[in-house]
Amino acid sequence: MSEEDQARDPEMMTIIAFSGDLDKLWPTMILGSTAAANGMDVTIFYTFWGLFPLVKDEVRVTGYDAMTKMLAMKNPPGFQKAKLSKMNMGGMGRWMMRKVAAKNNLMPPEELFEISQDLGVNMWPCLMTMELLGIKPEQMRPGLGEPAGAATALARMSKSQISLFI
Amino acid sequence: MSEEDQARDPEMMTIIAFSGDLDKLWPTMILGSTAAANGMDVTIFYTFWGLFPLVKDEVRVTGYDAMTKMLAMKNPPGFQKAKLSKMNMGGMGRWMMRKVAAKNNLMPPEELFEISQDLGVNMWPCLMTMELLGIKPEQMRPGLGEPAGAATALARMSKSQISLFI
Amino acid sequence: MSEEDQARDPEMMTIIAFSGDLDKLWPTMILGSTAAANGMDVTIFYTFWGLFPLVKDEVRVTGYDAMTKMLAMKNPPGFQKAKLSKMNMGGMGRWMMRKVAAKNNLMPPEELFEISQDLGVNMWPCLMTMELLGIKPEQMRPGLGEPAGAATALARMSKSQISLFI
Repeated sequence: MSEEDQARDPEMMTIIAFSGDLDKLWPTMILGSTAAANGMDVTIFYTFWGLFPLVKDEVRVTGYDAMTKMLAMKNPPGFQKAKLSKMNMGGMGRWMMRKVAAKNNLMPPEELFEISQDLGVNMWPCLMTMELLGIKPEQMRPGLGEPAGAATALARMSKSQISLFI
Repeated sequence: MSEEDQARDPEMMTIIAFSGDLDKLWPTMILGSTAAANGMDVTIFYTFWGLFPLVKDEVRVTGYDAMTKMLAMKNPPGFQKAKLSKMNMGGMGRWMMRKVAAKNNLMPPEELFEISQDLGVNMWPCLMTMELLGIKPEQMRPGLGEPAGAATALARMSKSQISLFI
Repeated sequence: MSEEDQARDPEMMTIIAFSGDLDKLWPTMILGSTAAANGMDVTIFYTFWGLFPLVKDEVRVTGYDAMTKMLAMKNPPGFQKAKLSKMNMGGMGRWMMRKVAAKNNLMPPEELFEISQDLGVNMWPCLMTMELLGIKPEQMRPGLGEPAGAATALARMSKSQISLFI
C-alpha cells in the first residue's frame, strides 16, 4: 500500500445481495468478511430475494397477504432454509452442500454473516423490498443497519473501489 | 461532492443487462433511473437473454429459423412477458409479482424503462446478440442507442465508477 | 487515452466466474478476450460452479466421496458439457445454442478460452473450491495460474477499473 493510500480513507466494497440462494450467500459472505478482515469498509445491501436470509430462523413465514405469504413459502426465510440456485432436489442439494462445506471446514453462511458483523461489515436491508414483501424490522436479525433505498446504495457504490451484484 | 468532483464530467454507471428475467429487470431499471435522476451518466447494455425485453410487445416471435424461433418462444419477447428467474409456476409467479408491485406502488419495469429513457439513460442493444438471435432493429422499442459490441461496452465500463453485471 | 493514462500501468479487469453455465461462459470469455485484445490486464477467477468448465473434457467425474461425485455428475465437468442456465431441455438447449452460435460465427467458449490464454488473460482457479469439490490440479486444463483465495482475488479487484461477478 502506497503512502498516499495510507493517508486516504479505507477502500470501500459494496455488494448488492440480490439472490438469497445458498450458493450465492457463500461468495457474498466470504468476499465481505475477507475484505473487512483486510481493512476494507464493506457494505452489503440486501434486496429482493436477498432479503429473506436476514429474517430470523424462528419466523415461519413473512408477508401481509396471500401473495406475499406464498412468495415467502417458496423462498423460506432465514439462512438455514436458503436453497441452492440449482440442483435443489427437494432440499437434498442444500443438505449435501452444507455437509460438503462442513467436511472442508468452510463455515456456513450464517456464521460468516456473524463474523462479518463482528468485523464491522454494514448490513443494509432494502427498504423498498421490506415494504414490498411485508418483512417487518422485528422479524429480522439484530445488528442490521438502517433500511436503505437505491439512492443510498448508489451513493455508496460510487465511492466504492469494488461494486458487485450477486 | 468536492469541488474537484463538480468540475469533472458526471460520474458514469454501466449495467450489463444479461438475464432478461422480470425480477432482474427491476434492479436494473431502479438502479438505472435512480442514478440518472441523481445526475449520473448511465448506460445499460442489453445482451443475450437481456435483449428480449427490448422487443416490442406486439412482436409475437423473433428469429430467422426453427432454433432461434424456439429460443424466442421459450423467452417470450417484450417486457410484459418477462418471467421470474424462479417460481415462475406457469406464469403465476410473474402475475403475482406484478400484483404485489402494483399494490406497493412499485412501477413495472416497462414504465421504469420509459422514465429511464426520459432521464437520458443510454439503452444499447448488443449487436452480436441481435445477429445471433435474429432480432431486427424494427422489432425493437424506439429510442434505443446504436447497437454496440463488447469493445464499446468495455470502453464505457473502464470510464465508469460503477459497473454491474445483472 | 490521455498522456497520464499512457504513463500508467494498463487498466485491469477482474471477472469472478461463479456460474459455470454455458450462457454465462460466453460473456465471461467475450469480455475477457476483448478486454485483453484492447490492452487491458485481465484476470478471471473461477469459483464454485464456475470451476467445473476448467476440468479437462476427458475427466468423467470429479470428487472424493459420494456427495462431491454427485455434485460433479449434476454439473458435468468441462466446457463441452456446460449447460444453459435455463431451457436446458435435457441437453437440447445447449446443443441448440451451440448450433446457433456456430451459424453466426460466434466461437464456442472453449475456443474463446484458448484465445484469451494466448492474449495473456490470467486464469485463476479458486483454491477453496478445488478442495471443497475435490477437483485436483492434474484434472484441470493446462496453463492456469496458481490456485488463489478470496483475499488474492479481492486485492486484484481493488486495483481493477472493472470488476464483475458473472
